[in-house]
Amino acid sequence: MDHEPPTIDRLVHRVRDFVRDEVIPVEEAVRGVAHHHVEGSGYVAGVDARDRELREGLRDAARAAGLLVPHLPAEWGGHGLTALDQAAVFEAAGYSLFGPLALNIQAPDEGNMHLLLHAASAEQQERWLRPLAAGEIHSAFAMTEPPPGAGSDPRALATTAEKVPGGWRISGEKWFITGARDAGVVIVLARTSGEPGDAGGATMFLVEGGAAGMELVRDVHTIDAGLYGGHSLLRFDGCLVPDDAVLGEVDGGFAAAQVRLAPARLTHCMRWLGLAGRAQDLALAHVSERRGFGARLADLGLAQQHLADNEIDLAASRAVIRETARVLDAGDAAGADAGTASSIAKTFVAEAVGRIVDRAVQLAGGQGVSDELLLSRYWREVRPFRIYDGSSETHRWSIAKRAVRAHGKGRRHDLAR
Amino acid sequence: MDHEPPTIDRLVHRVRDFVRDEVIPVEEAVRGVAHHHVEGSGYVAGVDARDRELREGLRDAARAAGLLVPHLPAEWGGHGLTALDQAAVFEAAGYSLFGPLALNIQAPDEGNMHLLLHAASAEQQERWLRPLAAGEIHSAFAMTEPPPGAGSDPRALATTAEKVPGGWRISGEKWFITGARDAGVVIVLARTSGEPGDAGGATMFLVEGGAAGMELVRDVHTIDAGLYGGHSLLRFDGCLVPDDAVLGEVDGGFAAAQVRLAPARLTHCMRWLGLAGRAQDLALAHVSERRGFGARLADLGLAQQHLADNEIDLAASRAVIRETARVLDAGDAAGADAGTASSIAKTFVAEAVGRIVDRAVQLAGGQGVSDELLLSRYWREVRPFRIYDGSSETHRWSIAKRAVRAHGKGRRHDLAR
Amino acid sequence: MDHEPPTIDRLVHRVRDFVRDEVIPVEEAVRGVAHHHVEGSGYVAGVDARDRELREGLRDAARAAGLLVPHLPAEWGGHGLTALDQAAVFEAAGYSLFGPLALNIQAPDEGNMHLLLHAASAEQQERWLRPLAAGEIHSAFAMTEPPPGAGSDPRALATTAEKVPGGWRISGEKWFITGARDAGVVIVLARTSGEPGDAGGATMFLVEGGAAGMELVRDVHTIDAGLYGGHSLLRFDGCLVPDDAVLGEVDGGFAAAQVRLAPARLTHCMRWLGLAGRAQDLALAHVSERRGFGARLADLGLAQQHLADNEIDLAASRAVIRETARVLDAGDAAGADAGTASSIAKTFVAEAVGRIVDRAVQLAGGQGVSDELLLSRYWREVRPFRIYDGSSETHRWSIAKRAVRAHGKGRRHDLAR
Amino acid sequence: MDHEPPTIDRLVHRVRDFVRDEVIPVEEAVRGVAHHHVEGSGYVAGVDARDRELREGLRDAARAAGLLVPHLPAEWGGHGLTALDQAAVFEAAGYSLFGPLALNIQAPDEGNMHLLLHAASAEQQERWLRPLAAGEIHSAFAMTEPPPGAGSDPRALATTAEKVPGGWRISGEKWFITGARDAGVVIVLARTSGEPGDAGGATMFLVEGGAAGMELVRDVHTIDAGLYGGHSLLRFDGCLVPDDAVLGEVDGGFAAAQVRLAPARLTHCMRWLGLAGRAQDLALAHVSERRGFGARLADLGLAQQHLADNEIDLAASRAVIRETARVLDAGDAAGADAGTASSIAKTFVAEAVGRIVDRAVQLAGGQGVSDELLLSRYWREVRPFRIYDGSSETHRWSIAKRAVRAHGKGRRHDLAR
Repeated sequence: MDHEPPTIDRLVHRVRDFVRDEVIPVEEAVRGVAHHHVEGSGYVAGVDARDRELREGLRDAARAAGLLVPHLPAEWGGHGLTALDQAAVFEAAGYSLFGPLALNIQAPDEGNMHLLLHAASAEQQERWLRPLAAGEIHSAFAMTEPPPGAGSDPRALATTAEKVPGGWRISGEKWFITGARDAGVVIVLARTSGEPGDAGGATMFLVEGGAAGMELVRDVHTIDAGLYGGHSLLRFDGCLVPDDAVLGEVDGGFAAAQVRLAPARLTHCMRWLGLAGRAQDLALAHVSERRGFGARLADLGLAQQHLADNEIDLAASRAVIRETARVLDAGDAAGADAGTASSIAKTFVAEAVGRIVDRAVQLAGGQGVSDELLLSRYWREVRPFRIYDGSSETHRWSIAKRAVRAHGKGRRHDLAR
Repeated sequence: MDHEPPTIDRLVHRVRDFVRDEVIPVEEAVRGVAHHHVEGSGYVAGVDARDRELREGLRDAARAAGLLVPHLPAEWGGHGLTALDQAAVFEAAGYSLFGPLALNIQAPDEGNMHLLLHAASAEQQERWLRPLAAGEIHSAFAMTEPPPGAGSDPRALATTAEKVPGGWRISGEKWFITGARDAGVVIVLARTSGEPGDAGGATMFLVEGGAAGMELVRDVHTIDAGLYGGHSLLRFDGCLVPDDAVLGEVDGGFAAAQVRLAPARLTHCMRWLGLAGRAQDLALAHVSERRGFGARLADLGLAQQHLADNEIDLAASRAVIRETARVLDAGDAAGADAGTASSIAKTFVAEAVGRIVDRAVQLAGGQGVSDELLLSRYWREVRPFRIYDGSSETHRWSIAKRAVRAHGKGRRHDLAR
Repeated sequence: MDHEPPTIDRLVHRVRDFVRDEVIPVEEAVRGVAHHHVEGSGYVAGVDARDRELREGLRDAARAAGLLVPHLPAEWGGHGLTALDQAAVFEAAGYSLFGPLALNIQAPDEGNMHLLLHAASAEQQERWLRPLAAGEIHSAFAMTEPPPGAGSDPRALATTAEKVPGGWRISGEKWFITGARDAGVVIVLARTSGEPGDAGGATMFLVEGGAAGMELVRDVHTIDAGLYGGHSLLRFDGCLVPDDAVLGEVDGGFAAAQVRLAPARLTHCMRWLGLAGRAQDLALAHVSERRGFGARLADLGLAQQHLADNEIDLAASRAVIRETARVLDAGDAAGADAGTASSIAKTFVAEAVGRIVDRAVQLAGGQGVSDELLLSRYWREVRPFRIYDGSSETHRWSIAKRAVRAHGKGRRHDLAR
Repeated sequence: MDHEPPTIDRLVHRVRDFVRDEVIPVEEAVRGVAHHHVEGSGYVAGVDARDRELREGLRDAARAAGLLVPHLPAEWGGHGLTALDQAAVFEAAGYSLFGPLALNIQAPDEGNMHLLLHAASAEQQERWLRPLAAGEIHSAFAMTEPPPGAGSDPRALATTAEKVPGGWRISGEKWFITGARDAGVVIVLARTSGEPGDAGGATMFLVEGGAAGMELVRDVHTIDAGLYGGHSLLRFDGCLVPDDAVLGEVDGGFAAAQVRLAPARLTHCMRWLGLAGRAQDLALAHVSERRGFGARLADLGLAQQHLADNEIDLAASRAVIRETARVLDAGDAAGADAGTASSIAKTFVAEAVGRIVDRAVQLAGGQGVSDELLLSRYWREVRPFRIYDGSSETHRWSIAKRAVRAHGKGRRHDLAR
């Protein structure tokens, strides 16, 4: 990382040491329970006293280390990192499942802070970005709806916001909303004009946690449990918000959501890449210690195949993330190039991370599928990444369509810029 | 299945209807808890009153339907199925995670019954096979040991059985022992001569559940929870067994274990293939009902790719299982051909089943990784199959070595028999 | 192959010995030139004196060995093989690229004989099947057209046959017609009613080689060169054929083509599987002889991975072929089950064979991509198999649509029959 | 490519336009014959009058355009490109199979120029680098030997150079030597001390083309034909060279070869990536023009899958190349980090390029395997890349070993620098 100033290198090392010394011991201790408890069957997301305590402990440590919200500009308490800088810092944080939570750069808060930074008024920033950046509240981004509403296809948006004197009345259901439980603020995408299927007509609203008419119906239990607050079903039943709850322009919600889209995809990749590197290290430790068939496992050819494939996938993922970060840093992060590049990066990295962790599990054999290592937990955590934030299928479809369209306009691959 | 007598077809249909009418409703109702409860974090294997009740209810229903232990000879209450017949019956049973438990053809009991049938004395059969076949007790097969003992490489066997007047004294640890909890009988492989690493010197012992000196140290918690009793760590601390506890010949344990090996690998494949078919049906139901981007999901090209790949993997898995069953039916099930064929079948089917369920999850999107469908549970259950009963890597290594050896003896692929 | 009568086993052994003793020496000697010469650039298909001599020599040897057309009924000189029997015999023949040519079971003649056997009148059989079965003439099947005509989608059929007194007048172009050069008879699919895009209205015609109005415009040079006569572009310019040139029913051509479709797909698989086995044997010979990094290549883990994957792909391909052959033998070879099964088999085996030969090339390193082994030739020959006779993409599309349709009718995967 | 000075961007555009206007028309015209003629069977490498004329024509055009040897320092006629700059320029050149030949940046000359630049004396540079850079002669690098000599494992080096008064006497065989035919200079690696298997003792010699005692025994015919002069077997039969033929230090040959190794691997990747982009453009053109099943092929889901996978592989390859170029630019190009990074890049890109071209062939259907597009030729040309310059297997083995070693030294993946 020759061309980067020494400061960034120093910051990365500080994050790395912090994660090793302060975060991993906590992760090792609480294992599967994390900031989630179990109830009835399997993982159950949610927030209880133990979760809050866990989070606050990690936040305090990060704050003391000067590592809270490193990505934000200095006026918001951070280091004003470029996307390329973030790539290194977030990967180092992601080396533990709890690292991003500690540094307050986890999803969806990190993406929401980015959105507020670029789309909110000064008053809105003071009210919501200030406590978010300080790690005092957490937030949710409510776009996805139960079928037949907005899912892979945002234009199916069915939740409505009706203009009333002094504000808006929101009605509809939002599904799979991460962090909605106990959120201080929920950013809601609702239709202010047009019909489901229309390309425009959406507006973003800032809804305070606990607002009347916004009900958390139930949690959606999933195979992952690493995101604070889990995923929930929200119901808006004529929820009334004031005029100044509008984030950005009325009817400009789809465009404004683009501001968040590409960067949030990429920070996901950065964090999960960190965890994939950890999985490889756990696998390396296992095969370096164990023996079988008269040799150290690490020296058996079929283990070497997995180890090498993991190194290749790690290096390729890192390269794709960094090149995409350069695209974001260079220009319009909500533009078409950033959209295509981040779509490709998200698809590639989500699948590569899945392969890496799966091979690590395989390398660790019986222990890999047990609770004796952290691998089986990581394996569960990374699976949904191929589905969340646009499934691999949706991205491929979009990538192919753009390639055909670009070809139609005479663009060629000998100048991929 | 033209060439098979109508009776087998009728039996398969009866199993199918039984699973649909009696088993799936129970599976739908108890979901993740199955015959396992949850405690602390994630799945916890074990046996409690609810588990016993669940199992007994399913067993009673199967007994009433005349479908208990269909594979065993008539004198043990079954239909005397060939391996080829079993392929169809076990697949139909495996269509629910609880089907094999209901029919008493689940692992490891089914393989243990097979072993007792072929290697036990009449007295031993009467004492242990009788209640096993009746579904009154369950059993365990204790071969695997914690490192550096027997794992992928059985010759590393470190547990010892020392001859004492009137019997044997067993000492050592056995790890990842499925169904050990509450087992009526545990078949233990112990070294009666030689050193760890030697190719011979192993003996099998029938140890009664609750025997003095056999302690269940702890459960090994894993990502799967479908096997009754879960997996445990057993400790033998000078456990004394009488002379008639020897199953087969003294020092003949490795050879006798072969009797169980190939058939047990293949019945695993049959059962999991059933579940893979179920996963595809759940995915088909999802994409047939849902719409996106202006079309039924089932009609989108990228969904079609997954659907077709699943059909291909299902058909290829079934073909491999059936051809291998024919090899077993034709000759020496403990011989080299059966070993190679079942090794190939296990590797192919374990990976194909993993791909099928993973694609089904992907097809179902957010619901696929949630508890709203059974898919996420199936996804966890099938993962260890690539590791249990010989990892894909161990099998590949063995397949390659046999291919090189056969080539050295002049065998060619133009006559693969 | 225990359950098959000894006669079939004996026949397979005779074919195997014949290929080893009579065919492989010729293949080794003529290498790349085969029954094709080179002219200008790369392979050039065609028929010259040397090709004819080569073919006649091989045919004479097969005739002398009593191995010509083994698949045909006894009255046509063969052994009346079932599809299952053919699986073993054709695989043994396919062990050399020239084996099927020697035995007169190569594409497209073998499929054409099958079609004549099931759809031709006694007079037509006597006139065309007799000399084909005797290996005196060869034949072509002209269905595919240049775009926008019939390709993956047969209904796009654009070649027309217009009724005239006493016969039909055929006009249009046929592309990629294998064996058209010097063919004794060409089976032409032409539209006798309706428009391109219609589901019906096609008729098959038997056109004598050299007929006026049928012109061989040019050869289509391809990466494969193993099919006698290569591939050509034919032009029909009002080619006049008599009424008795109609094969089957007028307007019944699409249905009649189904008679040929599933069996021809499967015999392709059988022959190529033989060649894949040969590739694995060549790779085994290479890695068994060579050393590197202080070990025999065959004992290096990364070679073992390829060797094992090849064994698995070979076994799975054979299993899929045999199960599909049983479906064909059991019932209506032109029916829906045979169509689906053979579609799955073709897709799976074409891809597996491609993987096997590619791995064999990789195992042989520099020699693998040189002319010093036969592997690089095999690698070229098998590539088009993923495209010819329905590309993998077309088959997957069709497999997915059938799965969705079957699901809609209540069919489930717990009873895959 | 925001951060790069406009000059590089301009240079890339000039190369792109030059390839489009001057090189592709020649490539289209000479097709398969290229700078190679055909003789007997399949491709035959070699150099004849037509080849020379072709090369000289392209060179003259590049010289006129000021685009010859753009990578070299200004004093040698180039633009002094960094590795990162080369990535863009070489990719643009590689968009035609003949682009690198035209610009005089093809293998092995480009790597040899690099080596001479870093390891040769001023006199050696003047004698050999001068005419090479001017495109007046071409060169070869003779390291690989027939088994059991140096292949994947360079330490097996068996060719010897014996000290004689005033010089050295070289004896041994070199195999698969690209460009040896008509080469002006051959760089020969020979053992000056120690035994085959020893880690040291190698020396590089500059042997003039046509030197007595260096015989071109025969050409090695391969599936690729894009490298000028093809591949040959050389025999050294006491070939006498003067003392000043030693390139670098006596016994320092292995270390000096490292200078060439990593950069040469990476420039291979750059050139082939260009061709992969071209293949994707040819596929896009095909599917944009053709229709099937009632739609444009480009809009069919199973085509979209291939198109998207190609876009992803292209982007990931470019990212890996550029990140590796940054590593080379930043430090010791012969060091361990550059070795690992270039090893990973070579493995990833060779396989990605193979996948891309294979998918492009598949997308183009029958035309893809014919001579009607350039795709089938590209498909042959890229296959050996997975074997040349270290096979994927050798690289994976080395990557795994380094990962295990680094782990043993405490290196972790949270700081991949």
